[in-house]
Amino acid sequence: MRAAVLRSLRQPLVVEDLPTPEPGPEQVLVRIETSGVCHSDLHAARGDWPVKPKLPLIPGHEGVGIVERAGAAVPATSDVRVGDRVAVPWLGSACGRCRHCASGWETLCRRQVNHGYLIDGTHAEYAVAHGRFVGRVPDGVDPLDAAPLTCAGVTAYRALRVASTGPGDLVAVFGIGGLGHLAVQYAKILGAAVVAIDVVEDKLRMAEELGADHVVNAVGDDPDALIKKLGGATVALGLSTSARALATAHASLARGGRLVLVSLPADGVLQLPIFPTVLRGLTVIGSASGTRADLEDVFALHAAGRTRVVRGSRRLDQVNEAFADLEAGRVPARLVLDLR
Amino acid sequence: MRAAVLRSLRQPLVVEDLPTPEPGPEQVLVRIETSGVCHSDLHAARGDWPVKPKLPLIPGHEGVGIVERAGAAVPATSDVRVGDRVAVPWLGSACGRCRHCASGWETLCRRQVNHGYLIDGTHAEYAVAHGRFVGRVPDGVDPLDAAPLTCAGVTAYRALRVASTGPGDLVAVFGIGGLGHLAVQYAKILGAAVVAIDVVEDKLRMAEELGADHVVNAVGDDPDALIKKLGGATVALGLSTSARALATAHASLARGGRLVLVSLPADGVLQLPIFPTVLRGLTVIGSASGTRADLEDVFALHAAGRTRVVRGSRRLDQVNEAFADLEAGRVPARLVLDLR
Amino acid sequence: MRAAVLRSLRQPLVVEDLPTPEPGPEQVLVRIETSGVCHSDLHAARGDWPVKPKLPLIPGHEGVGIVERAGAAVPATSDVRVGDRVAVPWLGSACGRCRHCASGWETLCRRQVNHGYLIDGTHAEYAVAHGRFVGRVPDGVDPLDAAPLTCAGVTAYRALRVASTGPGDLVAVFGIGGLGHLAVQYAKILGAAVVAIDVVEDKLRMAEELGADHVVNAVGDDPDALIKKLGGATVALGLSTSARALATAHASLARGGRLVLVSLPADGVLQLPIFPTVLRGLTVIGSASGTRADLEDVFALHAAGRTRVVRGSRRLDQVNEAFADLEAGRVPARLVLDLR
Amino acid sequence: MRAAVLRSLRQPLVVEDLPTPEPGPEQVLVRIETSGVCHSDLHAARGDWPVKPKLPLIPGHEGVGIVERAGAAVPATSDVRVGDRVAVPWLGSACGRCRHCASGWETLCRRQVNHGYLIDGTHAEYAVAHGRFVGRVPDGVDPLDAAPLTCAGVTAYRALRVASTGPGDLVAVFGIGGLGHLAVQYAKILGAAVVAIDVVEDKLRMAEELGADHVVNAVGDDPDALIKKLGGATVALGLSTSARALATAHASLARGGRLVLVSLPADGVLQLPIFPTVLRGLTVIGSASGTRADLEDVFALHAAGRTRVVRGSRRLDQVNEAFADLEAGRVPARLVLDLR
Repeated sequence: MRAAVLRSLRQPLVVEDLPTPEPGPEQVLVRIETSGVCHSDLHAARGDWPVKPKLPLIPGHEGVGIVERAGAAVPATSDVRVGDRVAVPWLGSACGRCRHCASGWETLCRRQVNHGYLIDGTHAEYAVAHGRFVGRVPDGVDPLDAAPLTCAGVTAYRALRVASTGPGDLVAVFGIGGLGHLAVQYAKILGAAVVAIDVVEDKLRMAEELGADHVVNAVGDDPDALIKKLGGATVALGLSTSARALATAHASLARGGRLVLVSLPADGVLQLPIFPTVLRGLTVIGSASGTRADLEDVFALHAAGRTRVVRGSRRLDQVNEAFADLEAGRVPARLVLDLR
Repeated sequence: MRAAVLRSLRQPLVVEDLPTPEPGPEQVLVRIETSGVCHSDLHAARGDWPVKPKLPLIPGHEGVGIVERAGAAVPATSDVRVGDRVAVPWLGSACGRCRHCASGWETLCRRQVNHGYLIDGTHAEYAVAHGRFVGRVPDGVDPLDAAPLTCAGVTAYRALRVASTGPGDLVAVFGIGGLGHLAVQYAKILGAAVVAIDVVEDKLRMAEELGADHVVNAVGDDPDALIKKLGGATVALGLSTSARALATAHASLARGGRLVLVSLPADGVLQLPIFPTVLRGLTVIGSASGTRADLEDVFALHAAGRTRVVRGSRRLDQVNEAFADLEAGRVPARLVLDLR
Repeated sequence: MRAAVLRSLRQPLVVEDLPTPEPGPEQVLVRIETSGVCHSDLHAARGDWPVKPKLPLIPGHEGVGIVERAGAAVPATSDVRVGDRVAVPWLGSACGRCRHCASGWETLCRRQVNHGYLIDGTHAEYAVAHGRFVGRVPDGVDPLDAAPLTCAGVTAYRALRVASTGPGDLVAVFGIGGLGHLAVQYAKILGAAVVAIDVVEDKLRMAEELGADHVVNAVGDDPDALIKKLGGATVALGLSTSARALATAHASLARGGRLVLVSLPADGVLQLPIFPTVLRGLTVIGSASGTRADLEDVFALHAAGRTRVVRGSRRLDQVNEAFADLEAGRVPARLVLDLR
Repeated sequence: MRAAVLRSLRQPLVVEDLPTPEPGPEQVLVRIETSGVCHSDLHAARGDWPVKPKLPLIPGHEGVGIVERAGAAVPATSDVRVGDRVAVPWLGSACGRCRHCASGWETLCRRQVNHGYLIDGTHAEYAVAHGRFVGRVPDGVDPLDAAPLTCAGVTAYRALRVASTGPGDLVAVFGIGGLGHLAVQYAKILGAAVVAIDVVEDKLRMAEELGADHVVNAVGDDPDALIKKLGGATVALGLSTSARALATAHASLARGGRLVLVSLPADGVLQLPIFPTVLRGLTVIGSASGTRADLEDVFALHAAGRTRVVRGSRRLDQVNEAFADLEAGRVPARLVLDLR
């Protein structure tokens, strides 16, 4: 099979021929149709994070494709069958046994492995994945849409759910890209009002088209002050990699407000002012990725026509250009590798 | 191995020699030390419920013992090892894949199998059980205590948790037996005040010793009126198999109160008065069994010395007498088969 | 002022001249513009419920109008000012002191008084109401819309919130009238899918127009079976006054499902089958009316263009015809008295 | 009446004769028996916080005493009567109208006024307080105990409740003083295990006597490492005014753990590391004071014999020495002025 391979950190990917992997007893072999390019792919390739990825690595954790083969134990342990369209997410597998797994928090499982990081991912013609952890893509969902939903969608969605978002909330989405353009829509779906904050005018226009009630360009305007005029954000999503944006997000909170941290800025520290945090009853919540239940919701909402995915497509051999475009911000909300 | 076997419904168990079972790849073989006798065993043996048990059946789902052998896949999928003391609960396994499993509600998994009902249980010298679904018994916990905790404990505990029990609550426990005597203790551990209701004076004395703040004998007194005098129950647990007791439990609720139904009375219908339910904001919650996380809590509380299990013991060949004693109410809170 | 007065139970209202009431120190005098006619008005006039209304009584608890005068203490204790458009709801006042009031459950306050029942209501040219308990109607909301939102809206909305409705839920709305047509919309706003059940084809058409994903006519079809085919209802709303419909609603629940009882059928008892309640983890929740926070949400959603109120209007002197039409089911979702 | 008065910031209090205040229509006049000395009194007297206290000021917000007179509106709006023993808390009154008040979050009300800060407090022989916001002290509770419960108790209790503390949690209490010694007990009452952290050996001994399962002296030992060995704190309470202790508290969290910030250290900034916050799903919650419902719980637990208050007493004219002792850490958990 053709695959994009990271052979060493901070080097371009190499598109090369590799043997098609064999599924283990609980695994499925997926013929990849589409594979979204996520900021985490850049972090992985650069080795930005304390824990380093395996090498060589096939990146990619927004994979969508068709099950071609299933391990011997799959029929007994999963509802996934050969011929199904499935999504291969960041959460490659979790232990299914620990306290986190047993209480709806598999995203916190200490024994989890992640596609495109600790195990091979989906920027390839084939991938193997755990039969219990792939998501089922409902009929009628375009694989080019399904890919970004698999990570950007599910992460944005869960961030809003952990903040108990609902009617009466004003949600401030800081950063309108792959996650942000979906966060705007999920916040509306959950009944909230939305203010979108970015530094690029086109992204704010996109946010408006997708339902944002207010937009703020953080270059010219003062988001904190403007959001306070609207009553303050009861929920703020930190999707920007600028630590300054995260501080502004915190400052924009209404009493009782919740800031959800999702992005992982390089400098990596939020200066949390204690006095307003205590007196105004503010909460800061870290949230990464999402569960299989979240993925099911995200796909169901899309199948019901309630979300729109903004994305461009590239061929597998354009993967390095795709990475460069993402890094430079030259992308619609998301880029997706099309392997069909 | 010696095992107590139900060969046909409504017949006595037969204690006989059977081949020791072989653990499958994800299973462990447990040498049973103790096995609690639960009301559900009686229901199974009588075929009381709409879904019938498999036949022949080894009943028992409060088994505790030592792992003697582990299937090939256990080391990779569970933290349980040969030599560990484990509990074999009602929840033999769940799919680990469905929405319920992925969100902390494995007790609702449609593909679950149950020990001592759809698969063989623990009234035997050996049992096989799923490596991811057995509970680990902490050091220092007596196997005679661990057995009742495995079902009576975990069921009572979860019933209180689904009702969000805490300080400020008055918990009315209707029925002080295997579950009830532990429910009294868990309610106190959660910070609530407790009123215990039964028709047997000895059980009320036991409830008092275990921490109940008030007791009511439903034979002479009117529980509804007495509990109302205390302000009404904010949480009521229906552990009695008398449908009339359940109606009284509902009538005893304070505004905003929650009745948790756990027992399965033969007549099986609660006449729910709609007017007070709506106007006084009452809730009725069905709750069966508990999760692995609940079991972990229950064992940890016992290991910390916070609960006391009231039980008598019998030998395996006394299993029919044990069933008869349980049916006749001639038991301390719980009977446990001791196979050591 | 002109007012519709109930002088004795089961008699027609009399529209007569009465002195305009004087607001107390914490009250406001509201010049009524519109006043919705609710099923509870019929129950009050017939004395259907255990607690009887005061007599003579001005019914009405969906009143909307302009504050003409404010008691001396209002400026210090409320943000409502002369000239504001306000809503006069069922919850005339609550004590503001008890545990329920202090924890977001003023609907359960034992010392609450209710407009159009224990105190005079809004089927009149003027009404007095508590300055802290009237709702503020946002600019741009039509008073003919605001009236039904004040009770039908807030009650339907809260019923969905107490069931934690969200994406992934299938909400079955049993009864598509004043509450039901708004419940369909709120369920969609909260991200759920909706199935509407009624016996009148026109109402099902209305439900579809308002966003219902599925409709079932309970005359020809079997709602329970059809909803089960969709996977079962995770949330069912009992808005019908037929006890049989409520039983069907319960039977239609998916595992883990929640039935919210709102309506108050004459026969008043739900036969709750215990076995499935326990084994399938079902919950039944009684819910009446809603809080001021709910009312704020409901108005904000309407001001944002997210709901549509289906209603006809009548003059005050047509109040008896309006009651008769409501009783006979000859109404669009809601009738509103227009006093302008 | 005799009263301790702050006439200007950073000056000693002056104990002087002042006219006994007159209760307004919704107020009660309380003859103070006891009045706890809280760290916030020091902050007020020094003008440490962005918003300054009124001057001259009678400090004190842990007052307990007997209602001597009640304003004309009290009988109609409160259950408090002349002769009742009541507590006068930090939350002097809240608006009773805003979204926070209507949803159980009166601690966030923007229009709240606070005893001993924006209105006069309880370091005096008499105080006036709002009839709906005083707490009722149950019979049998010693006024010397009731005083510290009124702020230290309720604040510690709420901090644990906002973190959803329960069985299965390991609660790390950073700082064992007025709040901390009660937090240890509440954490146990809620079913959790507790590790207490301080730099004073005597306080750790006290924590052990009050139920702490583990203690760590942060001078010699490394709390972070030791708590991690116990599995990490699922809940950490930041009660220390050392910003470094708060950072350690954050570092000690288990996956999914929640740090509750309560104290207000002078330097006032927590350096929040984003990477572990996101990847390990950590939450930081600000919590100040508590509601009337919390106060009711706290008193009920004490009346039931479940808590012990460690305190010394001083006379009113020793108030400056009491402040100095508190500042220097020369106090048992709490000092209480005894005015009887």
